[in-house]
Amino acid sequence: MSEIPGLRSAAGEQQGRQIPPASLARLTIYLRALNSLLAEGIERVSSDELAEAAGVNSPMLRKDLSYLGSYGTRGVGYDVQYLNSQISTALGLSQDWRVAIVGAGNLGRALAGYSGFQSRGFEVVALFDADQLIVGTEVGWLRVSPVQDLATVLGRTRANMAVLAVPAGVAQSLCDELVDAGITSILSFAPVVLQIPDHVQLRKVDMATELQILAYHAQRAQDPDLESGPRARAAQ
Amino acid sequence: MSEIPGLRSAAGEQQGRQIPPASLARLTIYLRALNSLLAEGIERVSSDELAEAAGVNSPMLRKDLSYLGSYGTRGVGYDVQYLNSQISTALGLSQDWRVAIVGAGNLGRALAGYSGFQSRGFEVVALFDADQLIVGTEVGWLRVSPVQDLATVLGRTRANMAVLAVPAGVAQSLCDELVDAGITSILSFAPVVLQIPDHVQLRKVDMATELQILAYHAQRAQDPDLESGPRARAAQ
Repeated sequence: MSEIPGLRSAAGEQQGRQIPPASLARLTIYLRALNSLLAEGIERVSSDELAEAAGVNSPMLRKDLSYLGSYGTRGVGYDVQYLNSQISTALGLSQDWRVAIVGAGNLGRALAGYSGFQSRGFEVVALFDADQLIVGTEVGWLRVSPVQDLATVLGRTRANMAVLAVPAGVAQSLCDELVDAGITSILSFAPVVLQIPDHVQLRKVDMATELQILAYHAQRAQDPDLESGPRARAAQ
Repeated sequence: MSEIPGLRSAAGEQQGRQIPPASLARLTIYLRALNSLLAEGIERVSSDELAEAAGVNSPMLRKDLSYLGSYGTRGVGYDVQYLNSQISTALGLSQDWRVAIVGAGNLGRALAGYSGFQSRGFEVVALFDADQLIVGTEVGWLRVSPVQDLATVLGRTRANMAVLAVPAGVAQSLCDELVDAGITSILSFAPVVLQIPDHVQLRKVDMATELQILAYHAQRAQDPDLESGPRARAAQ
């Protein structure tokens, strides 16, 4: 991961650089904050205000935004609309993302009903399940499709991103089906290591991993021998 | 974040060092793989085998395990049981984690029913909701408690970790109630920045952020100008 020095440079030079993971995650939080400001009709925001809304400090915000070649203007701040579109473009959100969710259990239904997707550039276009009792039922605006029709429905809905919300035991075979159907971006919640071809982007969220990481930081906070200086907080 | 050089050193020296976030996340995956091996009755594992089971390469595995002062023995590999307990101890899982879930909507129910928690050291001891239609219903072994009884039930169940699975609008006030009730470790799924006191560990998972990070990597993979060398995959 190459870090970009804090020096000014043309936006064009930044384009090809990969944004470090921590900055990338924070950029999505700035975007969420900017969307709220837009909704309130606010046109300009100082780096202090935006940093506070995102729960970070100003130097970190300015460093993160420097990856986009965005520096604001001293005493004037950032144009909310412009910064919003800059971050969106950098994150690939200017593209139309159409999401299929595989698995209509509690987690799949929670994701299908999550209003934050639509407002942040992701349209849920299909929801699949293998259970005949669930197939055909409605979740919000969507009707649950049978997983046997995966390829057909993915093609018809022009889905270009998929979420796997299925048990570990069936995750690999469904992942293979998604890849065979041409999906190249997959977010998996299944607690299992998936094999994917090189051209496919896979991201994983494991709920137990999140609790374990929290436990690690909690344990360190409890043990004064392990903490030096101000207590390290779990990264938000 | 200080990196520890790959040199051998006594386990004691490693104790106080903070494990880098990426290594920490991978350690939880090794633990998952080791649990599977234990369940199969396998007593020894080579670093190649364990690396493959976890979906990483061997040098990365060895580097991650070096943070625990664990190096295996050439030609013999790792003792599965011992490495399991080493990682568990490092992650703070030797402690008894009792988890309360606030919010019994689809996400809260998915989390309450997730078998991976119990097997990985987390017992879900309480589930809360504000909706009178949900309070009193059963989710697996748990009966949903009214959120008005939060402090009482947290005390009675001796919960020491909480998961916020509630809408953004009510997350801060419920977070405050958890903190007032003595909870110091919170995992939040609410898409909002939460204010917490310094002694509280907070970790956040934002579903839309995960999709946005995936979109960023997918966009880069599609654009040959942005990728140089072998295609960068989204970090698993």
